[in-house]
Amino acid sequence: MNYDLIVIGSGPGGYVAAIRASQLGLKTAIVEKESLGGICLNWGCIPTKALLKSAQVFEYINHSADYGITIEGQGKVDFGAVIKRSRNVADGMSKGVQFLMKKNKIDVIMGFGKLKGAGKVEVKAADGTIAEHQAKHIILATGGRSRELPSLKQDGKKVIGYRQAMNLPQQPKSMVVVGSGAIGIEFAYFYNSIGTKVTVVEFLDNIVPLEDEDVSKGLARSLKKQGIEIMTSSTVESVDSTGDLCKVNIKTDKGNVVIEAEVVLSAIGISTNLEGIGLEEVGVKTDKGKVLVDDYYKTNIEGVYAIGDIVKGQALAHVASAEGITCVEKIAGLHVEPINYNNIPGCTYCSPEVASVGYTEKAAKEAGYEIKVGKFPFSASGKASAAGAKDGFVKVIFDAKYGEFLGAHMMGYNVTEMIAEVVAARKLECTGHDIIKTVHPHPTMSEAVMEAAADAYGEVIHL
Amino acid sequence: MNYDLIVIGSGPGGYVAAIRASQLGLKTAIVEKESLGGICLNWGCIPTKALLKSAQVFEYINHSADYGITIEGQGKVDFGAVIKRSRNVADGMSKGVQFLMKKNKIDVIMGFGKLKGAGKVEVKAADGTIAEHQAKHIILATGGRSRELPSLKQDGKKVIGYRQAMNLPQQPKSMVVVGSGAIGIEFAYFYNSIGTKVTVVEFLDNIVPLEDEDVSKGLARSLKKQGIEIMTSSTVESVDSTGDLCKVNIKTDKGNVVIEAEVVLSAIGISTNLEGIGLEEVGVKTDKGKVLVDDYYKTNIEGVYAIGDIVKGQALAHVASAEGITCVEKIAGLHVEPINYNNIPGCTYCSPEVASVGYTEKAAKEAGYEIKVGKFPFSASGKASAAGAKDGFVKVIFDAKYGEFLGAHMMGYNVTEMIAEVVAARKLECTGHDIIKTVHPHPTMSEAVMEAAADAYGEVIHL
Repeated sequence: MNYDLIVIGSGPGGYVAAIRASQLGLKTAIVEKESLGGICLNWGCIPTKALLKSAQVFEYINHSADYGITIEGQGKVDFGAVIKRSRNVADGMSKGVQFLMKKNKIDVIMGFGKLKGAGKVEVKAADGTIAEHQAKHIILATGGRSRELPSLKQDGKKVIGYRQAMNLPQQPKSMVVVGSGAIGIEFAYFYNSIGTKVTVVEFLDNIVPLEDEDVSKGLARSLKKQGIEIMTSSTVESVDSTGDLCKVNIKTDKGNVVIEAEVVLSAIGISTNLEGIGLEEVGVKTDKGKVLVDDYYKTNIEGVYAIGDIVKGQALAHVASAEGITCVEKIAGLHVEPINYNNIPGCTYCSPEVASVGYTEKAAKEAGYEIKVGKFPFSASGKASAAGAKDGFVKVIFDAKYGEFLGAHMMGYNVTEMIAEVVAARKLECTGHDIIKTVHPHPTMSEAVMEAAADAYGEVIHL
Repeated sequence: MNYDLIVIGSGPGGYVAAIRASQLGLKTAIVEKESLGGICLNWGCIPTKALLKSAQVFEYINHSADYGITIEGQGKVDFGAVIKRSRNVADGMSKGVQFLMKKNKIDVIMGFGKLKGAGKVEVKAADGTIAEHQAKHIILATGGRSRELPSLKQDGKKVIGYRQAMNLPQQPKSMVVVGSGAIGIEFAYFYNSIGTKVTVVEFLDNIVPLEDEDVSKGLARSLKKQGIEIMTSSTVESVDSTGDLCKVNIKTDKGNVVIEAEVVLSAIGISTNLEGIGLEEVGVKTDKGKVLVDDYYKTNIEGVYAIGDIVKGQALAHVASAEGITCVEKIAGLHVEPINYNNIPGCTYCSPEVASVGYTEKAAKEAGYEIKVGKFPFSASGKASAAGAKDGFVKVIFDAKYGEFLGAHMMGYNVTEMIAEVVAARKLECTGHDIIKTVHPHPTMSEAVMEAAADAYGEVIHL
């Protein structure tokens, strides 16, 4: 078949690009080797959020007396049912993408896609059949996978990655989570809240190390209080998984310690899926595991583009989607602005939640800004009091000279829904006083954004 | 005592004005007849949100199996404990205001305040003592109370207002709620969800009649599904409360019906507290129960200002606070812009929640706009699926010519936290494409704002 566009990979980069392309009149096909929707829908964003919701409900049950509700007996987690719900949610979303492909008249080609010179894609189906397809434009969106370290070889049973972590046959009694980025922390929170003994091991000084230090410290305090053991400045040197329990050998500041756990989850980031997709054969330039692209995701080869985890920028679903749309709109000849990677929100859906965008305090200083910092704790928020969710805060950073909104860092109940305000405001070149003078509804958690901004300018009311 | 400013009334208008005044160097006192924080903190926004949180937790317990959690026995609402928690939250917040007054060196004068000519306020304490205080500027912020109709006389026991509704000695088995604005609907939702048989009677065609019609209809559908009986285009003509049960005589399209209920809640709006505060004596002009003020809340009398429920604009806590700040900043000589009353968000905290800002579709058409409308249902949202919260939608309205963001209307889980984005965006003169190109974090409910905007422009991805 001859297409205007073939997209290889149907994750949130690929399938979104395909839909937008179809809207813009391009005859489009998408190649997928496993499940429509990619990791995000099937083994990432969506099924983990389903697990986390079960954990949240369980916590409400455990604390129901705080809200005036009494329960005879106790709540119990039916681990199989929790996993099943999560899988059902993922399957439903994947079917949704299938529907969207059909509705948008996008051909779905199941199999492993590979570049075959200019305008050619070879697809090897599960049964070994090979077919060749042609397209004026080809977008590579092959995504990533759990990164493996030699000291932490995954066997899929006792030493696992995120895929196994969301589909274990039974709830482990104990777990070591290696790495404290969003994935590691979400699983640590989930398993701890349903009763697994969890230890988090982080190589750097702070957990969620990409976040502002106040968030890292606040979250560590909060998770420790919930019962999670946290070891920072620590490295897993080896895992002995020959016995019933894994023996995890951890190098710390104070020497080596060995921790035993049923399961070790490796959550030390992702590797990009660049192997076997024809990059070398066709001569597509890469660097440090990423495909090199321009601001509109064009590689050095005419008609070949790359988006998502395999290119520069944060390896996040919403980034991949935005890149896919930008790439396709440029192909279609629309006027389109490059993505501002400094205005990409990041979220961690543990409880308290974490959300942030833009410069951390440290990064702003390093970039040479003179800054104004404001902070508002949820302990001073009426809505947080009413909701029984006083843990956390909003921290905002402005450029002292022009009032530019440099960054926001939040921890607390619902902050993953609150960060969009800051992203939109920053896109619209918001100043501190613009936010202070935005009348936020009362009582909401979102008032804390306004109050934090007011704090930066000495105008905070409720502190 | 001689002050720069005396504020009469310590609700969210008054106490916020006092704090901002103190920040700006004005020697300030505040007069309060009952409890610091006024209705909002003590008998409004805050304690109701505490009740609603208990209802939410109870609903999670009742639906715990959906999330993979099993409970031996059943959850039961301890009505007294729920009320007590709500009162504790309110008391905590009121103490918080006390602390803020002290911290900001604002004198709190307990008693009933009354204007006594230019620059003079008389305060009558609970024990009858009368004192006179002087101030260069006086702000009236006396707020409102539950409105009473002759056909619906409140006796505080069987026919009640919102104050009694949040502090009943025991849970009624049945309740008729008259009026379906935010207050009526929040109580209807709360009592229904904890097991009271609730009937809502609304005079107009639709419940939450100030909202966009799609929201009114969607919410009615949702609340009916939850078991609330809804009677629109209906009027309570009389209540006979002489027996054990109240007999509520309701005029409907199809003739009169009588409904029996233990309690009748009158939630037909508020009356302003203008009586006895010296308006007539001093000559402050009023119209239809509101004090007449300019854009900076100055009355016709030099040095006398009014804010909050007693002036034009929405009778909402956040409006009162914004007015208080605007008024005081103007008094202090700061450059200050008048409040844009078309950019005030309104929220109803039932479940699904309701939040909106700006023009409804109908109002936009009536104002002569040619419009683009976009809508995104949460049934198509990944986060909503994961959270088990697929009910609801985001609807957005843009001016077709210039892309101006005319309004947003939301119903669903967490929308009261999502509306701030639209308020900020509208303040910053956002267009449809600005929102479409704002990279929202995935997976969140807030993506629906972006998708709804994209829908308006034929660019929606997940529909």
